[in-house]
Formats: sequence, C-alpha cells, structure tokens
Amino acid sequence: MEVGVGIIGLGNVGSGTLQILTENARSIEEKLGFPLRVKVVCSRSVHKKSLALDGAVLLTTDWRDVVADPEVDIVAELVGGTGVAAEIIQESFTRHKSVVTANKELMAARGPELWQTAIAAGVNLAMEASVAGGIPIHSVLREGIAGDRVTGLFGILNGTSNFILTEIERSNASFDSVLSEAQRLGYAEADPSADVDGLDARAKLAILAALAFGEKLTPADIFAEGIRRILPVDFEYAHQLRHTIRLLCSARQSANGLLLSVRPSLIPFSAILSKVTGAYNAIWVQGLYGEDTFYHGRGAGARPTGVAVVSDLMKVAREIRFGSPDRVSPFAHERLGEYRPLPITEFESPYYLRFRVEDRPGIIADLAGILARHQISLDAVLQLPTENWRDLPFVITTVPAREQAIREAVSEMKHAAYLLESPLAMPMERGF
Amino acid sequence: MEVGVGIIGLGNVGSGTLQILTENARSIEEKLGFPLRVKVVCSRSVHKKSLALDGAVLLTTDWRDVVADPEVDIVAELVGGTGVAAEIIQESFTRHKSVVTANKELMAARGPELWQTAIAAGVNLAMEASVAGGIPIHSVLREGIAGDRVTGLFGILNGTSNFILTEIERSNASFDSVLSEAQRLGYAEADPSADVDGLDARAKLAILAALAFGEKLTPADIFAEGIRRILPVDFEYAHQLRHTIRLLCSARQSANGLLLSVRPSLIPFSAILSKVTGAYNAIWVQGLYGEDTFYHGRGAGARPTGVAVVSDLMKVAREIRFGSPDRVSPFAHERLGEYRPLPITEFESPYYLRFRVEDRPGIIADLAGILARHQISLDAVLQLPTENWRDLPFVITTVPAREQAIREAVSEMKHAAYLLESPLAMPMERGF
Repeated sequence: MEVGVGIIGLGNVGSGTLQILTENARSIEEKLGFPLRVKVVCSRSVHKKSLALDGAVLLTTDWRDVVADPEVDIVAELVGGTGVAAEIIQESFTRHKSVVTANKELMAARGPELWQTAIAAGVNLAMEASVAGGIPIHSVLREGIAGDRVTGLFGILNGTSNFILTEIERSNASFDSVLSEAQRLGYAEADPSADVDGLDARAKLAILAALAFGEKLTPADIFAEGIRRILPVDFEYAHQLRHTIRLLCSARQSANGLLLSVRPSLIPFSAILSKVTGAYNAIWVQGLYGEDTFYHGRGAGARPTGVAVVSDLMKVAREIRFGSPDRVSPFAHERLGEYRPLPITEFESPYYLRFRVEDRPGIIADLAGILARHQISLDAVLQLPTENWRDLPFVITTVPAREQAIREAVSEMKHAAYLLESPLAMPMERGF
Repeated sequence: MEVGVGIIGLGNVGSGTLQILTENARSIEEKLGFPLRVKVVCSRSVHKKSLALDGAVLLTTDWRDVVADPEVDIVAELVGGTGVAAEIIQESFTRHKSVVTANKELMAARGPELWQTAIAAGVNLAMEASVAGGIPIHSVLREGIAGDRVTGLFGILNGTSNFILTEIERSNASFDSVLSEAQRLGYAEADPSADVDGLDARAKLAILAALAFGEKLTPADIFAEGIRRILPVDFEYAHQLRHTIRLLCSARQSANGLLLSVRPSLIPFSAILSKVTGAYNAIWVQGLYGEDTFYHGRGAGARPTGVAVVSDLMKVAREIRFGSPDRVSPFAHERLGEYRPLPITEFESPYYLRFRVEDRPGIIADLAGILARHQISLDAVLQLPTENWRDLPFVITTVPAREQAIREAVSEMKHAAYLLESPLAMPMERGF
C-alpha cells in the first residue's frame, strides 16, 4: 500500500527533504491516500549526523544500497553534479525505479537523453527542484498551463546575484565589497563565478526554455553575461530612468526562432519583475492564450527546495501506485527547428550605454558620431553631478537598436583614449 | 487512442476553450502523446454561431446529448450557476464520465459533496478554471507545493473590483463614476453586487482555503465586506502611509483555527500584492516549509480561463488514458476542526479609521476618548489640507487591536452629531 523512498545526499536539500517527509508525513498521507515512507538514507557522513528517524530506516554510505533496495520505489538523487549523480540515475532506471532530482547541471546538460532512458525503462524522472527551488514552475509549465503555448519566458533565477544587485542598489556599495559581505554571510560561495557570471542562471534557463518551448536546448545555446561590471552609479542612472537592474534570463520567440540570454538588464519600475529583491527568484511567462502569468518565491534553501522534492515524490508515488505506463518526455529529444536558438546579435531593444571617461571637450560628439555611423539613434544623455573629472560616469540611452550594431559601435569606441574602461551596454527591457 | 471531449456552454469560457482545443491541437497532442478530440458541442444558440469545427463534431442544444454520447470521455461543464450545471455534473458521473468545470458558485457551495460522488463513480472532477482563471493555483496547491503545509493564503480574486479600485486610485474619481464607466466598457455587470460587495471573491476564497487547509469551508464561513464605501481620499491617506487599498481575500491560520475574510484592506507598498492593478488577480501563499510564493495573472477572460479548462482536460485525459482508479478528494467531506473558521472579531491588526465630519472643536479628543475606553492605542492622526469644513475627511491609525474592540468603538462613535457617516475601518495588513 505504501510507496518507499530512498534519499541519496544529505546536504542542504537532502536534509530539508528528510525533515519535511518526516514532520509532515500525516498531511502527505492524507493528500495521497497512502503513506510515503523513507526506507533508506545515504550520505558519506550519515553515521555522524543525528537524524530523527525511526529504527526501520536503513542508513548507508553507499548509494548502491539505496538503488538496490527492493523496498525503494523512488530514488531521490540529491547529490548534484554530473558525475556520480548520472550513475545513480542510470542505475535506478536499470532497476526500474523512478527518480526525483534537484540536479540542474545534469538536467540542463543531459535531460533529454536521461528522459529517453526513463521512458524506455517505464519509469519517471521528476525535476521540480532543479530550477527556482521554492517556485513550482515545472508543475506550472507541464500541468497548470499545459494547454497554453508559451511565447516568452523571463526570469530572475539566481538568488545570489539578485541578492548582490539588491545590496548594491540599497547600500550604494561596490560589487566587490557586497560580494565579500555575501561570502562572509554564506550567501555566496568562495568561488562565486557560477552565480555572478550567469552560468548557474543559464543552466536553469536552458531547462525552463526547453520545457516551455518543447525545443532541445543546452546552456551553450544561451548568451550569458554576469554582473561583475555593475557599479552603484548604474543604479543611480537606472533609477533616473525609472528602472532597476537585474540579472535577467530571457527566452523569447521571434519570427525565426528563439532569442535566449542571461544578462544584466534594465527593468522598468512598472514591471512586477522589478520588485524581486534579495535571494528571491521569479518567472514571468507570456502565453499566446493565457496572456501573462508571474511566479515568485524562494530560489533556494533547504526547506523550500525540499518542498519541491517532496511534491515531486508525491506526484511520482501517485503514478506508481495507480499505474501510468506511457510517459511523454517534457524534453525534445532532437532539435526540432521551430524554436531554434538564434544568435543574440539579432536581438533588438533600446540600450543603456554607460561610459567612464576622463573628461575633456568633444566626448559626447565623438560617441554620438560613432553611434550615428552604426545607424543607432540616441534617446537621452544623462550625467549626474560630480566633481571627479578624472573618472566621470555618464549614460547614453538609445532608441531600439540591434545588438549587432551596439556591439560594433562599442567595439569601435573601446579604443578612445578618454575611456577608462570599455562601455557597458545593457538592454532596457519592455513588455512586462 | 484518443480521448473525447464534450463541451456544454459556449459563452465566454466555452468559446475560449473551443478555440484553444482547435487551434492548439497539435501542441496538445505532442504534450499528451495522444489526441484530445472535441466530439460534441452544446449551447442553446449553437446553430446560430459560426464555429470553425470539422464536420465530425456534433452540435446540439440539449446537454443530455453530450453526456449520453459514448465518444465523450470528459464533459466540460461551462454553463455556470448552481441549477442545470449540478444536473450536468451528476448525470456525467452517473454515466462514468469525468467532468472539468469553471463553476465557482457550485464548487464553493457543493464541492465536497460532488467530489464524493465523483470518487464513488471512479471519475475525476477538475476545477482549475473556477478560481483566478489565468493563474494555475489549483495545480500549484494540489501538485506543485503539495508537500508543504499552508499557513496563510492571501489573494486579490475579483478582477472587477480591483479594476475599480485601481481606477479610483489613478483618476481620483468616485466609486459611482468609475463603476458606471466600468459598466459602459463591459468590465462590470449591470448588477455589480457580486463583484463590488465581495461575494464573488468570497466564493473563490472558500474554494482555495478549503484546498489549502484541507478543511470543509463554505462561503458562509467567510466575513465579506465590499468596496462601495471607498473614497478617492482614502487612497490619498493610504499613500501618505505608504500603502494602497485592495479588496483582500485572506485565510490565515491562528492558534485556534482559521481567520477568513474578504474586505478592503491597506497593503504596504513594499508588498508585491500592492502592485496588482486593473483586472489582474494574484495569490500569496505562506508555507510552513516553502515560505512565501506568489502567483499573478489574468483573473478572467475567454482565453486565460480557456487555458485553465484545457489544461484540466489534458490532466484528466492522461488519467483516463493511463488509468488511475483511486482518487482522493481535495475537499474535506466533513468539518475536521483543526482549521475551523473563527469569528472575524478575533482578528488583530493595526487599523485605519477614516472619518467624515463637520468640523468643530473637540472632535479628535472625543474620538480618542472612545478609542481609549476600548483599550485601543492611536498610532497617528492624518489630516490633508482642505477648505471644506462641512465635509472634512481625516484618518486615525491604531496600533494592533482586536476587530472586536474596533467594532465596539466604531459602534459607539456612530451616533456622534459631527459625523457625516459611520467611520470606515480597514485593517492595515503586514507580513507579506
């Protein structure tokens, strides 16, 4: 009558999952109509942890004990990474066990292939926890609005970089000092690259866009730029323009395919996405029929991500108990073409261009001349009062222009003697 | 291989549903792995409509033709109301057909009972479209965050009243003139009572709170107050307090049970819920483990609500095709008690009290005296500049007080000769 669960990995997510499965067991059983029972827990340090489990739960340091256990119907792979995690999943499928995973790297890189294996084995592979832990976005895309056709998906999918941007905005401190503080508080890792360079967000966007558009996509299809170059003064200029700055993930349908990017972008105050602060995540989905929907919640954390794992376990358990033999992969197995990824240079938008210069006469004329040669029209020139003529930041905004033209213009500007660093170009987002 | 659908009712939602099922058929089939086919369409005026359907679709004016058709596996009840709709659902169950409905009145009033009948008949009853059309909140509560335990649910669930409040806020026009304009534009009905008196929102909250807390609840358990008394000046005072005003639906767990209400409330600018404008709906869910999640989208409309119906049809079709015999009602069949509804007089909050007076000396002293006798402490007294001493609106805010005490104080104030109307009391919401 019951369905048995094996948990592999007792880090942050594994601990949260185990806590919820234990504490909330009665409510889970009421909703399912049968119990969901933890049978085996595996972690390298499982014997050193003090776990509030009843004696019937087997503790092991070898994941093979979990996968081999005949009482385990579903394996929760909460190890992460693309090494042993892939082995665990493959071996679970071989033994006809369904898998619930929180592994974004693996699903972004090998989701389609693993799903094919799952279908061949007649089992399930659930991955709600792999993106935006606290937000049930997989469930929304695969069930809640399954009848719609997605035309655009925009997200703030990396809590660490959103926390850093929000702190720069709030405190006017530099990227480096906010990053150090975030590392001290444990909000950012010692090597922050995956978060602040947009790689973590890119893997998540690859998964969501693949689900939303039914196209085969990998992180390599997505243009990514991080937040290291954002200065406090960028927020001052953005605020003057009634915008904020966020690391925006976007996947939008255009006439010929998909435009995919992760990059710092200006978001208008009028958009709800501009209200996403701190370590929160959010996703804005545009549907052809259902119009705009918006989802907001914790991006990570032991318990919010644990809710995603447990909700997936419940869904998979229902299927096991009631039988649903034929599954359809949420991933396209091969590239279909209708939504092929386009080069980001085809993207068109108004742009925010921020310059740092050593002041002298003729700079605006020079920059405006370069923009004109690339057929880019200026919208506004903004310069906040300053007394430091040696390092003067100012901003030019443009009317809608092609990323290609902006890149060529920026590349031509880069060598001007008055520039202290290469111009920073960010799209000014509209439409949500 | 295919699953057959019968549609009863071709109003707004029925037309949207039919359009999506037809236009989006290929995408739906790809996601399901089998076709979802419209077999019969029923409406009183079906022969007068120009429908883009292939000749194999049977058109009828008698709903019994739909329910009796052996090719129909799922009946979409899109008639609304509690009369014939209930008959349609009962008769579908008798014939072992699952039902998808958009009927909030019926589900709020008789959901638990109808679900018991569905389970006895071994069929499904899906109702995503009954609340907040464009937002997949049923899917979220029943699947996406099923592993969590909800501790609070707050929503803006009536698009018409939110549109009216937003317009009063934007244009400074009176309730009556905005309502007339809304009626002219077709955003409000000739008899606006269900919308502006909070009854529509109350039925929706009854459904969502029942699902979220697993308790048997009906609209009668929920305190409801409408928006007719809101003046433009209330927004001016609210803005001074860094709040806006919305018709807020709330269901919150307290020590002894549930506090349930639909009422105009002050919402701080810092809360994302304050950004919900026009005909949008939104829901803020507090979870014990997953913390706060937020959902925002169209509250109504042919196509957004159609997406909800079609997504439900897909879910039910999967079950029919793959077999899931044992179902668990999302509704409690009898009152369980753990989350019993409490009298709203037990609610505690800071309050906004707005007075309209004919000015004379001693008014503040008198009102402050009454509040003091009821053990209510003042937080602030606000008075905008005016020259109309004959109808002077001003505001007193309180520190947290019991609704019971506020009611007693207001009742005592009501008879003061200087008051032009009974004081308006609204809670100032915190915590999201």
